[in-house]
Amino acid sequence: MPSSQPFSGVLVPVLTPFTPAGEPDAGRFISFCRFLLGQGADGLAIFGTTSEANSMSGAERMALLDKLIAAGIPAGKLMPGTGACSISEATTLIKHAVGHGVGGVLMLPPFYYKGMTDQGVYDFIAAVIDRVASSALRMYLYHIPPQTMIPFGVELVGRLIKAYPKTVVGLKDSSGDWANTEALCKAYSPEGFGIFPGSEVFLLDGLRAGGVGCITASGNVNVPGIRKVYENWKTPQADQLQADITRVRMTIQKYPMVPALKRIVAHFHNDPDWAAVRPPMERLSDAQSQALLADLAAIGYSLGDARREAAE
Amino acid sequence: MPSSQPFSGVLVPVLTPFTPAGEPDAGRFISFCRFLLGQGADGLAIFGTTSEANSMSGAERMALLDKLIAAGIPAGKLMPGTGACSISEATTLIKHAVGHGVGGVLMLPPFYYKGMTDQGVYDFIAAVIDRVASSALRMYLYHIPPQTMIPFGVELVGRLIKAYPKTVVGLKDSSGDWANTEALCKAYSPEGFGIFPGSEVFLLDGLRAGGVGCITASGNVNVPGIRKVYENWKTPQADQLQADITRVRMTIQKYPMVPALKRIVAHFHNDPDWAAVRPPMERLSDAQSQALLADLAAIGYSLGDARREAAE
Repeated sequence: MPSSQPFSGVLVPVLTPFTPAGEPDAGRFISFCRFLLGQGADGLAIFGTTSEANSMSGAERMALLDKLIAAGIPAGKLMPGTGACSISEATTLIKHAVGHGVGGVLMLPPFYYKGMTDQGVYDFIAAVIDRVASSALRMYLYHIPPQTMIPFGVELVGRLIKAYPKTVVGLKDSSGDWANTEALCKAYSPEGFGIFPGSEVFLLDGLRAGGVGCITASGNVNVPGIRKVYENWKTPQADQLQADITRVRMTIQKYPMVPALKRIVAHFHNDPDWAAVRPPMERLSDAQSQALLADLAAIGYSLGDARREAAE
Repeated sequence: MPSSQPFSGVLVPVLTPFTPAGEPDAGRFISFCRFLLGQGADGLAIFGTTSEANSMSGAERMALLDKLIAAGIPAGKLMPGTGACSISEATTLIKHAVGHGVGGVLMLPPFYYKGMTDQGVYDFIAAVIDRVASSALRMYLYHIPPQTMIPFGVELVGRLIKAYPKTVVGLKDSSGDWANTEALCKAYSPEGFGIFPGSEVFLLDGLRAGGVGCITASGNVNVPGIRKVYENWKTPQADQLQADITRVRMTIQKYPMVPALKRIVAHFHNDPDWAAVRPPMERLSDAQSQALLADLAAIGYSLGDARREAAE
């Protein structure tokens, strides 16, 4: 892997806690980031889809990042989402993140206008990279067509790698389409481009195809299980370990994902305020919450113990 | 119509000019707003979809509004788009606009997350209105599912009107679905709720159904024609006048709408720089530009003369 590839393993798009008044809760956020690193997370993809990042203003996201760094969370472990619909705002967010020395950034395509061409999306990303103009920038493309409707297709990804080989160093594939992940791995893994499936359901298949890990929402509640697959993927137990984490994932995603994850955190961390979401998301109903927790108990789920000291 | 309904007639979602370096061009923007008001536009829905508003940061939009006001464009004629994916940013944009005394604001639903419930969208809009907490706020809902995928459905609109009768005073329907516009008019026009189809193709039908005008992209290049329909809709010439403006619209929308409109402005205002767009949009190719202008010539289109003095 080239030195330009700073991340591998299990990355977590960290949930963002909100106070009862609906404000980002920096204290709980810092504690939770420490907990995840302590559990063995290889990186924190803060401000992703699971983080309700797009339910926060750019100013709110930058203030939270400032506080994480001030609290001693290592910048090199962070891959903040810096997507925005405008070149100007995306540039501001990336400059701020790179200024803090983050390991990389996760970059959405512009997602308001639909039916844009690959050329238009290319020009957008190129304009952002050119405006940031920093050799320290490591960008991971964020392919999530269920939300954006704007794809980073295989050919477009290749064009961006070719134009910015030291900057465009990886991709998170949240298409849920294994054929797409496999095609990306075949095309670009051999040259050291870091491909992360957006769900641990594809972790083992991804590693076998040349991927470097996963960036997964359920990492918020299952780092230890997912790490086991990553650490043992070449062993005979790999398929069984994968089946275990797939079962947990499938149980959770019967429910609206972000509210369900927050409800699990609230329960297992004994902190009911964690269940709060920002509109347009809605928290689970009491009936949904009880059903979710019963479903998890039925498959023997537990949060797992912190296995490492919290990162300095 | 209740006094809470400040707009009617022909409103233009004003194109935003960019400099060759890609920055919002305040000088050209101010001149163009004056031109449109001079042509008889009843209001300027700046920062809409046609304005590439979501290709600008909130800070860029607020700076442009500051400059329009400073240049003497009457605030009461302005209906800026204040949509954003977060309650926090939407609140900031609206407070800024209301602080300038704008006639109203045009409000997108939160548009990043797909598959949100009506309750989630309701809670988002309610939270924004509650946070702005101004009796001066007049909000127009912006229903444009082709871009947002998140609808303001007939029932949801009714709930918002009921909860905020003095604030939620109208809607722009850019669904392109006449049945939806008609259903909204039947349900809410009688109580003074102001419904604007998002295309002049539906202007006459809308007025006959109880609508109050239209907010239409092609207003950027055809205020005089569209005003004729609005002024004469009860006369025997109405259908012929409608056919005339529909023909212009249909000719333009054979091409990508925003780049086509900018190309028309560039041509008829003798100002080539006007053709610039911000990525992810792309400007028309030379071949497309020539075909568009030839198509317009073939139907006898002209920009029309300014018929009023520019508004002070």
